[in-house]
Amino acid sequence: MKVYITGAATTKFGELWSASPRSLAREAVTNALKDAKLSVKYIQALFVGNMLSGMLGGQEHLGAFFAEELGLSVAAFKIEGACASGGLALHNAINSVLSGQYDTVVALGVEKMTDHKPEDVATALMGAGSDEERAAGATFPGLYACLARAHMQAFGTTEEDMAAVAVKNHFHASLNPNAQFHSSITIEQVMRSSKIADPLKLLDCSPISDGAAAVIVTNKLGTGLPAGKAGNRVQILASTVATDTLGLAQRENLTELKATKEAGKKAFHIAGVSPKDIDVAEVHDCFTIAEILAMEDLGFCKKGKVGTLKHLVVNPSGGLKGCGHPVGATGIKQVVEIVDQLRGRAGARQVKNARVGLTHNVGGSGATAVVHILKI
Amino acid sequence: MKVYITGAATTKFGELWSASPRSLAREAVTNALKDAKLSVKYIQALFVGNMLSGMLGGQEHLGAFFAEELGLSVAAFKIEGACASGGLALHNAINSVLSGQYDTVVALGVEKMTDHKPEDVATALMGAGSDEERAAGATFPGLYACLARAHMQAFGTTEEDMAAVAVKNHFHASLNPNAQFHSSITIEQVMRSSKIADPLKLLDCSPISDGAAAVIVTNKLGTGLPAGKAGNRVQILASTVATDTLGLAQRENLTELKATKEAGKKAFHIAGVSPKDIDVAEVHDCFTIAEILAMEDLGFCKKGKVGTLKHLVVNPSGGLKGCGHPVGATGIKQVVEIVDQLRGRAGARQVKNARVGLTHNVGGSGATAVVHILKI
Repeated sequence: MKVYITGAATTKFGELWSASPRSLAREAVTNALKDAKLSVKYIQALFVGNMLSGMLGGQEHLGAFFAEELGLSVAAFKIEGACASGGLALHNAINSVLSGQYDTVVALGVEKMTDHKPEDVATALMGAGSDEERAAGATFPGLYACLARAHMQAFGTTEEDMAAVAVKNHFHASLNPNAQFHSSITIEQVMRSSKIADPLKLLDCSPISDGAAAVIVTNKLGTGLPAGKAGNRVQILASTVATDTLGLAQRENLTELKATKEAGKKAFHIAGVSPKDIDVAEVHDCFTIAEILAMEDLGFCKKGKVGTLKHLVVNPSGGLKGCGHPVGATGIKQVVEIVDQLRGRAGARQVKNARVGLTHNVGGSGATAVVHILKI
Repeated sequence: MKVYITGAATTKFGELWSASPRSLAREAVTNALKDAKLSVKYIQALFVGNMLSGMLGGQEHLGAFFAEELGLSVAAFKIEGACASGGLALHNAINSVLSGQYDTVVALGVEKMTDHKPEDVATALMGAGSDEERAAGATFPGLYACLARAHMQAFGTTEEDMAAVAVKNHFHASLNPNAQFHSSITIEQVMRSSKIADPLKLLDCSPISDGAAAVIVTNKLGTGLPAGKAGNRVQILASTVATDTLGLAQRENLTELKATKEAGKKAFHIAGVSPKDIDVAEVHDCFTIAEILAMEDLGFCKKGKVGTLKHLVVNPSGGLKGCGHPVGATGIKQVVEIVDQLRGRAGARQVKNARVGLTHNVGGSGATAVVHILKI
């Protein structure tokens, strides 16, 4: 069975003071349905990716919560895996269609972070880490700083190498109307920004964001859809997940994310393509070092050689760094961006002749990794 | 493709002061693997049902968390839908096997509730309710009391009718070594117990509990398993989910749970059996009125006629009332009980000649309902 994405939409990402989780979800799903030219009545299940609503807002049971908001009484689930919640929701949505249990479903990622105090958000985000890390008062900037330091020591990676990731992603974001940031930045600005957790500085870190994104996943190109209209649907070639230890202390090697390597290897095998075939990728750059790790661990380049990469465009949306990182929404937004790129409707940031794309979504400091490969 | 449960286990349910979520999960999964005579290395994905770990304990990312505990680096997910989290985890586990993505997976339900103050638990549980209910300070005993009152007014149901459910389920629990309560109770004791939310009294309510339960879901009867040994595996005939509004105020009718009716109807259709064919059922008796609603809404009897039911045994484990209700574990424990009944190993509480069984798991006051039908 072939599974397609026939509709995809994201809200604006950013500090959305007048939006609620409900309004964000409704906007994303409504626009994804409109994109697919599909009535909501064809939706048979809803997969919601979200991390923080329970811890920060006291609201759980988000499957039924958003199903009600959309006027649906169908099967509905909240899938959680920290910042990989969106990717995991899509993985289960795809499998549910492949299973034959459902024909057409929605994968929705949504997060509203700015309504809460930043220190509460930081504490809640540590719900993705290990017992020891939480007890020690570690934060994710601190944990990724450890990964950055290990990479610098092993491969001579410089702070400027990392800063270059932020510069690129801010430039991409400046071309994306839905991105949180529209300001281009320079290496010097990154280098001079406040230290957060040495060697990571403010402009090495993705922001706290609100936003939602949704995709329509289906095996049907006929029912209620412009039947088989090429260019309107993107095929999902592979959807894979792997996990690793929650804590850094339990890992053998801090210069790679093993879960990314495993999920990536499996995805390329299932899709029958190699890293060379990927024209455009959205990878999980929660911190600049994370994009470098992702490109290496997915097999796009050798360790320490990310600066030599030429054949593909990475994070055209602006990535988590420039487009914003509403954690549960990120994994779905990455897929929306790739769909837009493959369908040739990415506007000023369009990657020319993009035919095959990849997304890579990470939970915690690499305990969960999700990879999707898509083609038009 | 046929999907089977080849291993099933539950921990003891109750106030387990010396247990942690980790130790509970490890015990349940280890025993389920032992039951299936399966090495953990054959497990390709882990589906964790849990509601409260984030809100009460600050720990999310439970897929990777428990995968690490089990020594696995496979795909892992937390699935949440309030007290139906376990049932929803199993539903996604089954679909993932039907999809062909995985052959053999674990569905694990786990909850540790007694480490927290009861008032914090009550607040966290309201994460399953609607905005209005939470703002109004409603609690689940209060919401189910509204359902009980509506049922009493519509059908002349008495407080003694409800008490009879508690008496039956406590009797069943007295025969279940893993149950939280082993004391038989009488109608008079229920009637004299403290009022919680009129007309519901203390002994109409399920307790706060700790516990875990796990099942092995597979399409393989060969790999590492006692190949095709009849009697060792139970077939899953149907797995269905439906949703309704989170809040009672938005519903047309308070004398039924529409999600239960929809999930039940669909499950019987898919399984090709009728309520008459069910020999044993585990239904969601979070309050005594809930078991009455479940039996009616699943089609086992007409409204107001639950006392006339003779042909099947309901909640032989003791149900949520007698066996305990660690919320994320309940949906899986129900399935473990049915597996034990169908395999004829339920000891003193064995239902004679049980061939077809049903489980019914509810989230909130009926916003999510999950039904499974199993046969040997």
